[in-house]
Amino acid sequence: MPGPARRLVCDWGTTHLRAWTLDAAGEVIARLDLPRGVGGLAPGEAERVFHAEVQIPLGAAGLPALLCGMVGSTLGWRTVPYLACPAGAEDLAAGMAEAAPGVRIVPGLRGEGPLGAPDVMRGEETQILGWLAMDPARGLGDHVLCLPGTHAKWVQVSQGRIVRFVTAMTGELFALLMTHSVLRAGVQPDDRAAFAAGLAAAGDGDALAARLFTARSRVVAGGAPADSTAAFVSGLLIGAEVAAVPALLGASAPKVTLLGEARLCGLYAQALTHHQISAEICDGEAAVLAGLAQLGDIR
Amino acid sequence: MPGPARRLVCDWGTTHLRAWTLDAAGEVIARLDLPRGVGGLAPGEAERVFHAEVQIPLGAAGLPALLCGMVGSTLGWRTVPYLACPAGAEDLAAGMAEAAPGVRIVPGLRGEGPLGAPDVMRGEETQILGWLAMDPARGLGDHVLCLPGTHAKWVQVSQGRIVRFVTAMTGELFALLMTHSVLRAGVQPDDRAAFAAGLAAAGDGDALAARLFTARSRVVAGGAPADSTAAFVSGLLIGAEVAAVPALLGASAPKVTLLGEARLCGLYAQALTHHQISAEICDGEAAVLAGLAQLGDIR
Repeated sequence: MPGPARRLVCDWGTTHLRAWTLDAAGEVIARLDLPRGVGGLAPGEAERVFHAEVQIPLGAAGLPALLCGMVGSTLGWRTVPYLACPAGAEDLAAGMAEAAPGVRIVPGLRGEGPLGAPDVMRGEETQILGWLAMDPARGLGDHVLCLPGTHAKWVQVSQGRIVRFVTAMTGELFALLMTHSVLRAGVQPDDRAAFAAGLAAAGDGDALAARLFTARSRVVAGGAPADSTAAFVSGLLIGAEVAAVPALLGASAPKVTLLGEARLCGLYAQALTHHQISAEICDGEAAVLAGLAQLGDIR
Repeated sequence: MPGPARRLVCDWGTTHLRAWTLDAAGEVIARLDLPRGVGGLAPGEAERVFHAEVQIPLGAAGLPALLCGMVGSTLGWRTVPYLACPAGAEDLAAGMAEAAPGVRIVPGLRGEGPLGAPDVMRGEETQILGWLAMDPARGLGDHVLCLPGTHAKWVQVSQGRIVRFVTAMTGELFALLMTHSVLRAGVQPDDRAAFAAGLAAAGDGDALAARLFTARSRVVAGGAPADSTAAFVSGLLIGAEVAAVPALLGASAPKVTLLGEARLCGLYAQALTHHQISAEICDGEAAVLAGLAQLGDIR
């Protein structure tokens, strides 16, 4: 039986759930990965799912648990109020809320975005603070991070606190265009040349609706192979994001840290290089795990 | 029975078909409007549909007919090769192809677009030449036209010829986002304030994927009413297009002529005004009818 120093941590997003049991030293004992995001839950279902599909299979029913992500939203288990930026690990730890006895949820963050509307995140704050926790020197400097995905976050971090961020729905646009638009195309194997052509076609990130149409005209009137469309559109969208979004933060970014899945981070790194910005990639799962372990240690 | 000077003209696009019978003076005798675009036809079906659903109902079976639009594409009746820009009415008349005895189709245009890929149009060329034909003075000057729609065309016209153009898939993006995205929203009554807020939020037309996300965050975190989302997104997309696409043509445009449906042209006029560009609106149906009448007169 697990001892009291063991604990359960969980990143529960809109489409996915990942959970780990950790020993007293923070080492992973077991891992669970389910396509069981809160976006697919009926109201009130989160507690039952957590118990039956996470706690029981991991043998972690009695362990203290710490959760982050959309599980703290209105879609999730219990709505945990957003904290205002700037915020660091101590603030997040202080803002946790209990969903059930022994089960706490990390709050999301709310920032005054650079585009005239407030912006929000749930889950990314834990990844970012985990990345900071991996190397104490990071807590002293200024950083620009990008967390690619359905709704990519660009984040300015200073002195260990998340200062400002902005969201770009690049991943969602890509999925929409590939599924429902005149540009729709099956998923293709990597086509580095077409991705690079898309990056070049992104220009300064303006006139996106016109640039996107060239993904069609380059095929129907320009002789490009139809099966290069997905990679071209990916390059165009990521290129347009990288060309314009970091500047919105007002942060000079000679280097951007990418937190996320390796393949997608690799595409963003290529786009950053195209714009003479160097990139460092950190695995997103490692970051969220480090963040949950650290936040669990604070309280 | 109609005399030989009568004729049938038809604008047959991807989603829609409009046909008119004209008398010898070019006046409309009858009009037909069907949701029967070539996008929904089976291969080889165009001729039968044209006969049964257009010629017969209009009592125009024996009349010479002139068609424009996607009916001249691979989706349509007969593929008519694109003509290269610059092109004027004489070029289009010379490039017509016969689909059946007495039934001719206007060719589309192909241009070297400003974005490194060729661009194409089918149907818009006839509207533009119709607009020119409505006032002989227009054939002497330089103009920038915009034809809003699913795939909006921005067109540079000089001395009666279509010189250069670029397509923006703004209308399609709007439909995708309203139907399938996290921003999806029912069609709402006009909300002029939200549309204007979207125009203002469009900035220079860059960072669109980030600006679009503010359509969500202004509601979930900013207190804006959810039913203002559609108008906000419409303003954002049209604003981003108007901010950046005309400049791609390299044409200074103190005035833009909008050809199309009144409501949509009104939104574009508001966006142009926001950018200190004056707008003139011309009904798209009147323009295509004038174009088909004129092209039929040339040969």
